[in-house]
Parts: sequence; C-alpha cells; structure tokens
Amino acid sequence: MLASHPAVLLGLDLLGVFAFALSGGLVAVRKGLDVFGVQVLACVTALGGGVARDVVLDVRPVGLSDWRLVLTAVLAGFVAFGYAHGVQRFAKVVLTMDALGLATFMTAGTLKALELGAPALEAVLVGLMTAVGGGMMRDVLAGVVPEVLRTQLYAIPALAGGAMLAAAHTAGVHSVAVTLGCAAFVFGVRMAALRWRWQAPHPPRPSRSPS
Amino acid sequence: MLASHPAVLLGLDLLGVFAFALSGGLVAVRKGLDVFGVQVLACVTALGGGVARDVVLDVRPVGLSDWRLVLTAVLAGFVAFGYAHGVQRFAKVVLTMDALGLATFMTAGTLKALELGAPALEAVLVGLMTAVGGGMMRDVLAGVVPEVLRTQLYAIPALAGGAMLAAAHTAGVHSVAVTLGCAAFVFGVRMAALRWRWQAPHPPRPSRSPS
Amino acid sequence: MLASHPAVLLGLDLLGVFAFALSGGLVAVRKGLDVFGVQVLACVTALGGGVARDVVLDVRPVGLSDWRLVLTAVLAGFVAFGYAHGVQRFAKVVLTMDALGLATFMTAGTLKALELGAPALEAVLVGLMTAVGGGMMRDVLAGVVPEVLRTQLYAIPALAGGAMLAAAHTAGVHSVAVTLGCAAFVFGVRMAALRWRWQAPHPPRPSRSPS
Repeated sequence: MLASHPAVLLGLDLLGVFAFALSGGLVAVRKGLDVFGVQVLACVTALGGGVARDVVLDVRPVGLSDWRLVLTAVLAGFVAFGYAHGVQRFAKVVLTMDALGLATFMTAGTLKALELGAPALEAVLVGLMTAVGGGMMRDVLAGVVPEVLRTQLYAIPALAGGAMLAAAHTAGVHSVAVTLGCAAFVFGVRMAALRWRWQAPHPPRPSRSPS
Repeated sequence: MLASHPAVLLGLDLLGVFAFALSGGLVAVRKGLDVFGVQVLACVTALGGGVARDVVLDVRPVGLSDWRLVLTAVLAGFVAFGYAHGVQRFAKVVLTMDALGLATFMTAGTLKALELGAPALEAVLVGLMTAVGGGMMRDVLAGVVPEVLRTQLYAIPALAGGAMLAAAHTAGVHSVAVTLGCAAFVFGVRMAALRWRWQAPHPPRPSRSPS
Repeated sequence: MLASHPAVLLGLDLLGVFAFALSGGLVAVRKGLDVFGVQVLACVTALGGGVARDVVLDVRPVGLSDWRLVLTAVLAGFVAFGYAHGVQRFAKVVLTMDALGLATFMTAGTLKALELGAPALEAVLVGLMTAVGGGMMRDVLAGVVPEVLRTQLYAIPALAGGAMLAAAHTAGVHSVAVTLGCAAFVFGVRMAALRWRWQAPHPPRPSRSPS
C-alpha cells in the first residue's frame, strides 16, 4: 500500500512530475514564452492533474504544499528554459519519461481515490484526471486542442490499468506488487503504442455513394 | 422537493446529460478526434458543469460517482461517434434536447445550492455554472470561443429561471410544481429564442461622425 | 490583520475587482461578444482567481456569495459594454487599476491562505493563483494564449511581494503595515515594468555557428 512504501512511490511520483514539467516547459519554449510562462506551463502540466484530483476528492492539494513536488517541477522548467534545444534532441527520452509519468500518475491517482473511499468507477475517473489533466491544461493554455484527444493510444492504456487496479482493490488485494504491475502495464502498452504507432479508432467516414 | 420526487428529476437529469454529451461528441467528431477524444468531450460537456458545481459547493461530485450519469454520457458519446452524420441531420432534435438540458441543469443546480444553504445570489450563479459550464469546457477544449458567449439568447433565460426558483425558495415555496415551472420557463424561452432568432444585445458601435 | 481592518481591505478588493472586470469586459467587446459574453468575461476575470483560491483552500468561494464583489464586477461589465471606446482611450488608467488589482489580489490571496494554516510555499502559490487566475481564464475563454505568460514583468513582482508577506508572517509579524507594504511593492514594480518596458528573460536562442 501507498503508506507502507512511500519512498518507492515518492520516487516514481517525482519522476513523473519531472517528465511532465519538462514537456510543459518545452511547449512553452516552442511558443516563445518568457521565463515565467515556461515555469507556469511546467508547473501546471506537472501539478495540475494532481491538484484537480485533490480538489475533486475534497482534500487540500499536495501539489501546492509539498515542496519536493513543486521544486522538481521548477527544476524541470529551468532545464526546459535553458536547454530546450538539447532536450529536444532526446525526444525519445522525453516520451519515455512522459509514459512513465502517465503510468505513475494514473496508479497513484486511482489509489488515492480508492483509499479515500471512492467507488471503483469514480476512482478510475479520478486517476485518469490525475494522469491527463495536467497535459490538457498545458495544451489549453498554449492554445491548441489537447494532444491527449488526438494522439496515439495514450489514455486508453491508462484507463485499462486503472480499472485493473480498482478491480484488485475491490477484490481485497492491496499489495504493492499489484500497484506496480498496473503501472508497468500502462507504461508497457503506452511504449508499444509509440513504437508501433497504434491509433485509437476514428469515427467512420460517411459513404459518398448516392444510396 | 428534489428528495421527494427523485425519479422525475433523475429522468430529466439523464435526458440533459444525454443531450449535452451528444453535443460534445458531435463537436469532437467534427474536429476529427479519435474515439477517446469523442468520449472525453462527451463526458466533459455532460458532466463538467455538475462537477464544477459540486466542487464549488464543497461536496463530492456526483458526476464522477453516479454510474447512471457516466454511463448515459458514454452511451451518447458512442452514438455521436458512430452516427454523427445521422445525428446531424436531426439538428433540431439535438437543439431541443440541449434546451432541455439547459433547463434541467439550471434548476437542478440552483436547487442543490439552495438546499445546501447557499444564499440566493450564489445559488443562481452556481445554477448557471452547472448549466453552461460543461458547454464552455467543451468549446475551450475544442479550441473555439465558447458558443454561450456568442450565441442567441441562451444563458439569459436560464438566469431568469434560476432567479425565479431562488425567489420562490426564499419565500418559503418548495413545491415540485415551482421547480418544474421554472424549468419549463427556461426551456420555453430558449426554444422561442431559437425559433425567432432572438439575440442578446451587442455593444454599441462607435459613431464614425467627426463630432 | 485582515480581520481588524476589513474596511481598508474590502475597499482595495473592490477596486481590484472593478479593474479586472473592466479588463475582461473590454476583451469581450473587442471579440464582438454579446452582453452576456461581456458580463461573463468581466465576472470570470474579476472573480475567477478568488474562486479558484477558495476551492483550493477548501472553503466556500466568497466570489460567488458576496454580493458586493459580484455587483462590482457586473457594474464594471456594463461600463465596458457601454463605454468600451471611451474606456480604451484611458488605457493608462486601466493598466494602473489592473496593477492595483494584481497587488491587492496577490496580498489578499496569500494572507487568506496563511490565515487558513497553509505553509508559506502554498500560500504564495495560492496568492499567485488568486492574482493571475482570473486573467488566465479570461484569455483562455477569449481563445488567446494568456497574456500573463507573454507580457512584460507581471507575475514576478507579485511572486516577490507574496514571498515577502509569507516571510513576515512566518517570522510572526502580522501588522497591516506589512500587508500594505507588500501590496505597494507589487504595485510599484509592476508600474515601473510598464513604464520602462521591463521584460522577463526569454529562452536562449540556439547558436547557429558551426562549432
């Protein structure tokens, strides 16, 4: 459980925050924003999903009060600010870290909701909000349609992993192994989707035939 | 009161959720989003206003925990995904259902705020947030200026209906008839605005004369 | 402290609300929105930051329940609606009032968070959210990248003023003079940034030289 392995989960969380903040900072640099804009986009991307989760769960957001999370996001923001061109050469590293962030945020968000007594459906939706909320805020602030709505298979593996975790929790299984297994599943499917360009289905085109 | 006629009000609520989700899904299809994007826009449009309401009222959002609401939104999302071209031919039906959603969300939101002890002004503002919040989120995510800020008379009848409901509540009148009457008023004025293309006033143009 | 000088702080608050609402209403008029769009943008700009602050602090938002704040925002909305061209001729006045709003919202937000027991870091972040949140919502709804992310030194003086206030509070200094001093600092630096066009630094451009 979360409470019994805080160090492992904090480590994963910080890695996710760093990766998401980096992605937010890079978007800001590409948009030509100044140092404050870069930091805001870095912090919103990294912390926004967790703040939304805590607001919905009616607890005080840790994303604003835990200095380790905030400091990590700000550090990543400065990396993006100072080394955007260097970082962009390592696009694969950033995408890998982003997949890791997706996996850890999804499982951490779902778990927190379950532990606060949320039913399974709500827990999975809250997990999803944690995992994709920050990225959606980043894209809305940057003035583009959120990537998660358009991109290759991104949220669907997260949803599946969260559902597995909620099912295990409902069945009374609370081991760290299950949590890490679900995170690994999300990460693995996301990486595979990137590698083989898996797409979520698009709406059927209307037939142009006269009938 | 809400508590004594839950079936009627749940029915109206589900109809509103379905209509709003359909409108969100259709916007997503038009934007060329994939199945996840369609579902997110459907759910955000249908449930976002209610979640914002509950966050502001400091209670756990039912829009995430009540599976009937979530399932209805997802169903409407699949209808939009699979039958967008069919649905768009029934634009009038969709607009009618949207007006119904506006009416039920406005009254349900105002009523919930009043019952949680909010003063009349706050209750009406919360009702408005319930009624137009989801649509605004839909348009922000889709990258357009929210329709409610530009369109024919939409929010103004809702405000009037909410004010009537709050006035009745403040005067000690708590009957279902009043609630349904206010909802019917909102619905009727909105339909009339659509039928006769009523517009809210626009700012005065500056006179170009030299004086 | 806030509680002992409510009249002074209410006055500053109302001035800030008026200034921010005016800026929101003017953006709406420029976008060609109708009277409802103008009012929504005025109210969201003036009250959105405070509502976000209260949601994060887990208290009922005063921005929705205090009729003096709402009424002031609506009044400013009507001024923007009716006299947009007149107001725009006084751009300097509007910018000055906006700087005043930034200063009062930053200190009021930080102070409220501190008094509710938030640690210093969280208090400053909440103060910043109060001060720039409404303007960011305004720009997102208007479909542009938020000005605060691009503009001349805006949020950085606010952050500095909030940090000074949090430091004084942590050191046990709770006088009104400190609060007003911090607000004056924010206001002064912001006005100087406008006067001499101070910019926050932009990311380094990549060198094009072969080395």
